[in-house]
Amino acid sequence: MGIIVEKFGGSCLKDDEALKNAAQIIRQTVEEGYDVVAVVSAQGDMTDRLITKARRLHKEPAKRELDVIMSAGEQLCASYLTVALAAAGIDCVSLLGWQAGVRTNRLFGSARVTDINPARIRRELSKKHVVVVAGFQGIADSMDMTTLGRGGSDTTAVALAAALEADICRIYSVIDGIYTADPMEFPQAVKLKEVSYSVMQELAYLGVKVLNPRAVELAHKYAVPIEVRSAFSDAPGTVIREEADMEKMLISGVTKKSDVARIRLNGIENRAGQAFSIFGLLARENIDVDMILQADSEDGNKADIVFTVDEAQADEAVNLLQKHYAGANTIVCDKNVAKVSVVGLGMQSHHGVIKAVFEALSEENINILMISSSELRLSLVVDAADAERAIGAIHRLVIGKTEA
Amino acid sequence: MGIIVEKFGGSCLKDDEALKNAAQIIRQTVEEGYDVVAVVSAQGDMTDRLITKARRLHKEPAKRELDVIMSAGEQLCASYLTVALAAAGIDCVSLLGWQAGVRTNRLFGSARVTDINPARIRRELSKKHVVVVAGFQGIADSMDMTTLGRGGSDTTAVALAAALEADICRIYSVIDGIYTADPMEFPQAVKLKEVSYSVMQELAYLGVKVLNPRAVELAHKYAVPIEVRSAFSDAPGTVIREEADMEKMLISGVTKKSDVARIRLNGIENRAGQAFSIFGLLARENIDVDMILQADSEDGNKADIVFTVDEAQADEAVNLLQKHYAGANTIVCDKNVAKVSVVGLGMQSHHGVIKAVFEALSEENINILMISSSELRLSLVVDAADAERAIGAIHRLVIGKTEA
Repeated sequence: MGIIVEKFGGSCLKDDEALKNAAQIIRQTVEEGYDVVAVVSAQGDMTDRLITKARRLHKEPAKRELDVIMSAGEQLCASYLTVALAAAGIDCVSLLGWQAGVRTNRLFGSARVTDINPARIRRELSKKHVVVVAGFQGIADSMDMTTLGRGGSDTTAVALAAALEADICRIYSVIDGIYTADPMEFPQAVKLKEVSYSVMQELAYLGVKVLNPRAVELAHKYAVPIEVRSAFSDAPGTVIREEADMEKMLISGVTKKSDVARIRLNGIENRAGQAFSIFGLLARENIDVDMILQADSEDGNKADIVFTVDEAQADEAVNLLQKHYAGANTIVCDKNVAKVSVVGLGMQSHHGVIKAVFEALSEENINILMISSSELRLSLVVDAADAERAIGAIHRLVIGKTEA
Repeated sequence: MGIIVEKFGGSCLKDDEALKNAAQIIRQTVEEGYDVVAVVSAQGDMTDRLITKARRLHKEPAKRELDVIMSAGEQLCASYLTVALAAAGIDCVSLLGWQAGVRTNRLFGSARVTDINPARIRRELSKKHVVVVAGFQGIADSMDMTTLGRGGSDTTAVALAAALEADICRIYSVIDGIYTADPMEFPQAVKLKEVSYSVMQELAYLGVKVLNPRAVELAHKYAVPIEVRSAFSDAPGTVIREEADMEKMLISGVTKKSDVARIRLNGIENRAGQAFSIFGLLARENIDVDMILQADSEDGNKADIVFTVDEAQADEAVNLLQKHYAGANTIVCDKNVAKVSVVGLGMQSHHGVIKAVFEALSEENINILMISSSELRLSLVVDAADAERAIGAIHRLVIGKTEA
């Protein structure tokens, strides 16, 4: 039998009961005959509590020290889970990031894994030990402790799975899989059985928080299959792999982003350099622009430029443009919009899907303000009030009805 | 200028205010021109809390895992103190035991330091960094984390001071020095300005808890001067070194142990093997015997053997002897006694001191039940009710009056 990496998030390790539950999950995998490497996050909100304390002592603590402080969270949790496993009769040992051979660059707080040396893990596995690894942490060449940034335990798990050539990397949380939309908000959301890496990356980018995007990228690179599942349910989760069986559904998910503002610059002279002036100005002030559309007027002399930014940055963007950009007749900002994105493999090459989405919105009498599409995604800006109805309509009229 | 090692106990790091106070102490030493290596214990009662949690998961957690868990306490504290130092404007860096080069054997929970490799500390000091080292922890050759047992941070501090050839190792706690008796109990107790290693070891063995006996032993071996002082007072503490100026006092301390029982075996036949029968029996059941006296009768045929044990083990000792040792006429146990010990350098070779002690007790009309003496110590068993008066009399009539 092979190796399985099982990663547990902080919410499924938050107290004694949760630790015992995780131990039982691991025990079951051991009894199925697998060698298990478990990877843990810190318990519950421990990381936040540890950092809050440091910030009481210094407004801006050194990042190197924050990494030492934060890594204690995973250290404790790994050892507590090991103690719980021993109580369940499983031979086991805990390893810190550096003991597990997780080497990183020296970018404290958001280090990247440069190399995995799994020698110690292999040695422990050969003794039939379950190995519990403190996630989220590594060691730089300078022998300093580093952390991989929020969600870094996912990255640890996938990197170890790749280095150990594990059969699969299971990511346990309180969420039992990847859904076509947020199931808390949209009861009609459907759990996906499988999804491809690239679609998962697009979903993660659009805010599906179940899985860290960097971990998905790494899994893609090394072709590590991931299963996202709940630690508190036996239901199968969602498997992420290259040749995912998309269940004949082209659409894998629909996401909504409400904190969006749309800014429109009217009557711009239609000549080279205008877009550069506008977006160069915004970039200098670190304002992230998402969708951009430009349409010229009938006579081709004037153009309108429309783009979206985060709602929190909208006023700053408008102020900047009013002060430093004289090329527009009017600048209008609409915060009352939302972005709805439909994600799926090969969306653009299947015109039927896009057509079906537009049809669904038309049937609901929803006006589309902006459209932008890529191979994997169709994003629409609509009135904020229409967003939920739009997602409902897409679920009702498109998902499950379009076949590849 | 040289290097000073400053060790802070958990009680002087227990909250934000205490951490800031420790940072100010270090800052002052830096401003005096010294390179400072700080060594920390875990904050307040953190170690106990971490272990309690592990014991909820498993009655007897693996010692290796307890070491991983406990060492997180010093890890956090070292980094928090570093953050507090940075806030006080001091360039600094924290190092874990293994980063500081503290190598130990693999006796989890009570590892012994085998070697110190101070290369990283020296590198940081050469950059004018204050180095804050997590005490109590080290690394075994197997690359596993170890801890040095309770009070181990003292050992870390002394070992580092020896390896770095520091000018002095300062041990900060809430107690401002070594007293001739427990100052909480005996207001007449006098703080010692200096005391020798061997007397300090004897005092530590007799229960003076300010300093770990192993740390004193190590300091003695490498001739590291130690100063015991309070983190909350500017008063000079007690310096422990080889050629201590004993302030013309031969007596360095008087200690009391109340949980003592005296067991007397009467009418033992005076022939070889009796003592072996008795004390072999007790040793097999792990009963620690302290003072032992034997006196034979006038005709030399019979003897009495008297010894002391911990009060908690007295009943078990008596039961054992009654069951398995038939050689005595009567076995009498007296729990109503106390042991008073007078500690000082060269006691036995200065008969004046011993005489003065006996004289003081005689003046107070205190009956001495047992006497045992060594080069460094005179121990007396008296009625429990007389113990405090005895210590008072020794202070009043002997300490400060006998000169070397």
